[in-house]
Amino acid sequence: MKAAVWHGAKDIRIEEVNLKPLASDEVTIKVAYAGICGSDLHEYQEGPVLIPTTFPDPLTNEAAPIVLGHEFSGVVEAVGPDVYDFQVGDHVAVNPAITKRESPDDVDVYDGYSFIGLSKDGGLAPYANVSVQNLYHLPQTFSLKSAAVMEPAAVAVQAVKEADLAFGQTVVIFGAGPIGVLLAEVARAAGASRIVVVDLAEVRLQKALEMGATDTVNASQVVDVEQKIAQILPDGVDASFEVAGVQETFDQAVAVTKPRGFVVVVSIFPQPIRLDIRELMNAGVRIATSIAYSRQTFQQTVDLVTNGQLKVEPLITSEIRLADFLKKGLLPLIDNPSEEKILVNLTKSK
Amino acid sequence: MKAAVWHGAKDIRIEEVNLKPLASDEVTIKVAYAGICGSDLHEYQEGPVLIPTTFPDPLTNEAAPIVLGHEFSGVVEAVGPDVYDFQVGDHVAVNPAITKRESPDDVDVYDGYSFIGLSKDGGLAPYANVSVQNLYHLPQTFSLKSAAVMEPAAVAVQAVKEADLAFGQTVVIFGAGPIGVLLAEVARAAGASRIVVVDLAEVRLQKALEMGATDTVNASQVVDVEQKIAQILPDGVDASFEVAGVQETFDQAVAVTKPRGFVVVVSIFPQPIRLDIRELMNAGVRIATSIAYSRQTFQQTVDLVTNGQLKVEPLITSEIRLADFLKKGLLPLIDNPSEEKILVNLTKSK
Ligand SMILES: [Zn+2]
Ligand SMILES: [Zn+2]
Repeated sequence: MKAAVWHGAKDIRIEEVNLKPLASDEVTIKVAYAGICGSDLHEYQEGPVLIPTTFPDPLTNEAAPIVLGHEFSGVVEAVGPDVYDFQVGDHVAVNPAITKRESPDDVDVYDGYSFIGLSKDGGLAPYANVSVQNLYHLPQTFSLKSAAVMEPAAVAVQAVKEADLAFGQTVVIFGAGPIGVLLAEVARAAGASRIVVVDLAEVRLQKALEMGATDTVNASQVVDVEQKIAQILPDGVDASFEVAGVQETFDQAVAVTKPRGFVVVVSIFPQPIRLDIRELMNAGVRIATSIAYSRQTFQQTVDLVTNGQLKVEPLITSEIRLADFLKKGLLPLIDNPSEEKILVNLTKSK
Repeated sequence: MKAAVWHGAKDIRIEEVNLKPLASDEVTIKVAYAGICGSDLHEYQEGPVLIPTTFPDPLTNEAAPIVLGHEFSGVVEAVGPDVYDFQVGDHVAVNPAITKRESPDDVDVYDGYSFIGLSKDGGLAPYANVSVQNLYHLPQTFSLKSAAVMEPAAVAVQAVKEADLAFGQTVVIFGAGPIGVLLAEVARAAGASRIVVVDLAEVRLQKALEMGATDTVNASQVVDVEQKIAQILPDGVDASFEVAGVQETFDQAVAVTKPRGFVVVVSIFPQPIRLDIRELMNAGVRIATSIAYSRQTFQQTVDLVTNGQLKVEPLITSEIRLADFLKKGLLPLIDNPSEEKILVNLTKSK
């Protein structure tokens, strides 16, 4: 089968690969849709970041070349001998996180993690073998396209949990990329009463409004972002989310958030940032981070999405074929702000 | 009367001053004991830090020269015409924080604050005029000496509250100065089951053991502080307190604390520090700060101290006369680690 295979930085090939043997606790998924993620772009531009190269990954025992794709949905095509909960024909979403499972679910990820699609062959291929531990049932009637964004939705659900947000509170989200706009939708579903999204690109702010934001601030068009937020939310910001990944927005998040409110950092900052403890003290703001999701959070996300409380469909801005992975998939993510989530339709990719 | 008056950096004089006129809501306190604080030392060495000089303080309308002393206790000597809750002869502790009182008590301090003894004449004098808003009743039988450390005890109580500590949890305190050892005692009173204190000075670690610590780590004598803490607390650290004020201990606090546990920064860092968001994400640790105390926290501190749940007496390492303020008070704080809290006995200071 043809798959998107990472060989090295600037070297992702659409090439013929064989599906690895099916383990006894795995199912073969006939992939429907697979999303392309910012982390795939990082692996392309400056990788390897998470992909194992010189040594096999300790949790998966695999190494590059690796089939990419950690955001995917599909239909069960075959089941291993120890699989009881899934049958051929079942529709499934994939939680790509692989953990040691030595600690309780809510802190499991802090013992270290690997990802299907980065440390083990993933879903940017017509077929993928996945352990039942990573599978979630979907209603047969639910859109397999929407199900392909379950993973980034789970990232947003976990981040909102980390903010200890209460019903009716107010939030500001810095950055309107895929996770930023999903955060707006998740905050809406969590009962936030005002959801302000800040970005430089008007097209992304419009997408945020489509997905749960109540207000937007175009940072390229206002003199003082903090003042503008204070005008929109004169009673203050209960929690803020840093999804832009720059010092300036981190500082703005600290400045606008209420005492004892959380700034939840979701972006990965490649370099250490500057933290002014005196400013943090005078603001009384708390800093939290969020990484991936617990298994409980993933199940809750599946439930919220499939029962319609979380509408993720507007996130999907393009649908492409696997052959166009680089040109119409990965590369537009670099410089086209109107693209949020690009899905590869694997049923058309042969 | 003779008082300790701040005129400028390196210029604190023991000189004759007049008590300012008594406002209608104030009482005159005959001061019993006044503590010397690290912030007094900062005002001496590199001040002004908080002391108003060119313009009067907006909340107190006073400016330097200022009578120092923000940690003090005493007996009511006279009352203004609008004072009903206090009578001549009452024993009192002073909460030196002056706030705008426009926001709820628990976040009031984040609107800005001034301090009696820094922005208004304080208690390093035989008499001080203090508003009833800053006064707390003491039992007549309670030691006025112990009552003079109510203020730093309130700082520690507030910091432990910021850690969201649950009964039975474990804590690590980095730094065994006055606030550090008070934190050990407050954590004990809050029900922490293991209280590890880290410092470079053995004499301070011994003081910490006298005041609530269950274990100590002498950072000058172990190769790896984090490893040593992991040996003492193999099940992890629920919350940690940064009271040493250096990058290294901040990083250690992040490294040893459990996912979703708080690192509460109590030290004032004069310069911004380096924050590695990736390390914070992999640790899952949250950063909080603590500053001063709410009025509720101060009252709770008075109750905890006067009912004996918080034993603060061992903190007091020396008692001096006002005439010896510089030589035996302020200067030993610079280089004598065996000094924790030095009290000036104002009843002997004339
Ligand atoms: Zn991703
Ligand atoms: Zn002080």
